[in-house]
Amino acid sequence: MRETGKVAAIGADLGGTNIRLALVDSEGRLSEPYRYPTPPRGEAAAILETLAQGIRVLQHQARAHGIRLVGCGLGVAGLLDGRAGLVYTAPNVPGFQNLSLKKLLEEKVEVTVTLENDANAAAFAEYWLGAGRGVSSLVCLTLGTGIGSGIILEGKLLRGASGAAGEAGHMVVEADGERCGCGARGCLEAYSSATAILRDARAALARGEVTSLREPFRARPEALTAKDVTDAARAGDPVARGILGRAARYLGVGLASLVHLLSPDLITLAGGLTAAGDLLLPPALAELTGRAFPVLLRRTRVELSALAETAGMLGAAGLVLADAGHLWVHAR
Amino acid sequence: MRETGKVAAIGADLGGTNIRLALVDSEGRLSEPYRYPTPPRGEAAAILETLAQGIRVLQHQARAHGIRLVGCGLGVAGLLDGRAGLVYTAPNVPGFQNLSLKKLLEEKVEVTVTLENDANAAAFAEYWLGAGRGVSSLVCLTLGTGIGSGIILEGKLLRGASGAAGEAGHMVVEADGERCGCGARGCLEAYSSATAILRDARAALARGEVTSLREPFRARPEALTAKDVTDAARAGDPVARGILGRAARYLGVGLASLVHLLSPDLITLAGGLTAAGDLLLPPALAELTGRAFPVLLRRTRVELSALAETAGMLGAAGLVLADAGHLWVHAR
Repeated sequence: MRETGKVAAIGADLGGTNIRLALVDSEGRLSEPYRYPTPPRGEAAAILETLAQGIRVLQHQARAHGIRLVGCGLGVAGLLDGRAGLVYTAPNVPGFQNLSLKKLLEEKVEVTVTLENDANAAAFAEYWLGAGRGVSSLVCLTLGTGIGSGIILEGKLLRGASGAAGEAGHMVVEADGERCGCGARGCLEAYSSATAILRDARAALARGEVTSLREPFRARPEALTAKDVTDAARAGDPVARGILGRAARYLGVGLASLVHLLSPDLITLAGGLTAAGDLLLPPALAELTGRAFPVLLRRTRVELSALAETAGMLGAAGLVLADAGHLWVHAR
Repeated sequence: MRETGKVAAIGADLGGTNIRLALVDSEGRLSEPYRYPTPPRGEAAAILETLAQGIRVLQHQARAHGIRLVGCGLGVAGLLDGRAGLVYTAPNVPGFQNLSLKKLLEEKVEVTVTLENDANAAAFAEYWLGAGRGVSSLVCLTLGTGIGSGIILEGKLLRGASGAAGEAGHMVVEADGERCGCGARGCLEAYSSATAILRDARAALARGEVTSLREPFRARPEALTAKDVTDAARAGDPVARGILGRAARYLGVGLASLVHLLSPDLITLAGGLTAAGDLLLPPALAELTGRAFPVLLRRTRVELSALAETAGMLGAAGLVLADAGHLWVHAR
């Protein structure tokens, strides 16, 4: 990225653990990302300042290389309305409640900021640079602490009346089922997220089930992570395998609802939990296949996303570049 | 419709009980519909001949009045790909399995035939002439023997990769729940369709529950209809009310999934079962409200469709008129 006259956008990704920022050009090339730890306890002022700092550094970098910046796309895990520049709620960032994040950030930096739901950004990255190149419609499910999704139909990101469409994690898969973080019961997120896997594993430990997780976490069950559970499952632990199997099965139920409703060309699974994709995908696909109408099913590919954790930055920046007319992504 | 030079399309609606056809002009005015009983046992040849007859009569009528016909839109309850002119399956018409209905019909009549899923046609009628005028996105759920849906997003009917998107009746609301007509378990249709209500009422009778339905249908439970159940519920019968309440509650669960995923401006409920709308809508809305994110919920209206049983004809013809450039319906 040293070409004078080149155009780029800043892609930023505000996660519960890290804030990442990079310059992204219209070919989808990324500068070396900056990473800052997300200020703890979701303090809005500290997060804003960290974001502003990162943006200023990249503005400086762009200027030094003669790159013209067309804006900053900021992906945030949460309910938000990008058009209004407003974050309704962000579970990982308790300080962001009904916050005019766009306005507050633009007061600190000299660049236009566009908010985007993180799963929407990932879906656009998939469409632009990933498995979704050349398709007309795709759903990108992000499986992590929660479950988000971005939906692209006929080449356009679905935003809906609220600006916050695509909450596939809160499709209901079991009407009277497990309590979800959102307060309701039986959402997909209450079954197939890292949080759900962890809840089930802790419950198994509390019941005294015989598992390889028992000894290491007997004294400190709070130290258990979803990765410990998937590692144990991969090593053959039957309790951990059962827990992963349940999460995968409900994922397949959710996929069936998506296929029946949207009949997309492609569904990709992204997010941290897909590190366990080899354990999740086959049983999820088996459940899907047992449920979905064959004529719909055979037109939808379901696969793990090949994009790395940079997808959020790429997608958030890509949407800004596309809006500014510097990106030509065509649906078939 | 007597103006010479006027343009119209034939709107046809192939249902399990009746075949209806009428001329529809670009203002949404309808000629007096022709109605034929649907040939029994879904014999494809007899149905094709009946449809062809009706189309010929309307062609003659159009000619006699100097009306130019731009095509025939045919709504069919079933899985189909309108672009391919192919009916995959139609539950009410067992003879229509992987049938090139468009081609077979066009061999019999001198007009271009466009197939449309019946719920898609109803959704378009809602968008063109009903509660959806002026909105950007809507879902029309048709509650009858089965549950169908048509989805309009940013002014465009969602067809999906298979051409058969919008099967909201087969969103899963209870992963291990009631067996659905499609073979899978726990679909919305297995809870909130007339078929589900009837199944539950017959089961209540078989269990010997105390209900006003018991005496009239003791000897002939097979004569019971969903309307008998809704009539009994309206008259205060507690068993019938419980059955309707369950159907309504799951309808609310399905609405929550739709709101979370699509965040549409409007969801309308259409179809025969909405004759019981006063019994269904309030508990469904209560369930929805208890589940959905307020920021999404407050942007979606949910209401009973005010369109009559002519909606299928209007919508199927309207889509043909729109494709031919004779209709200007704009999303806001």
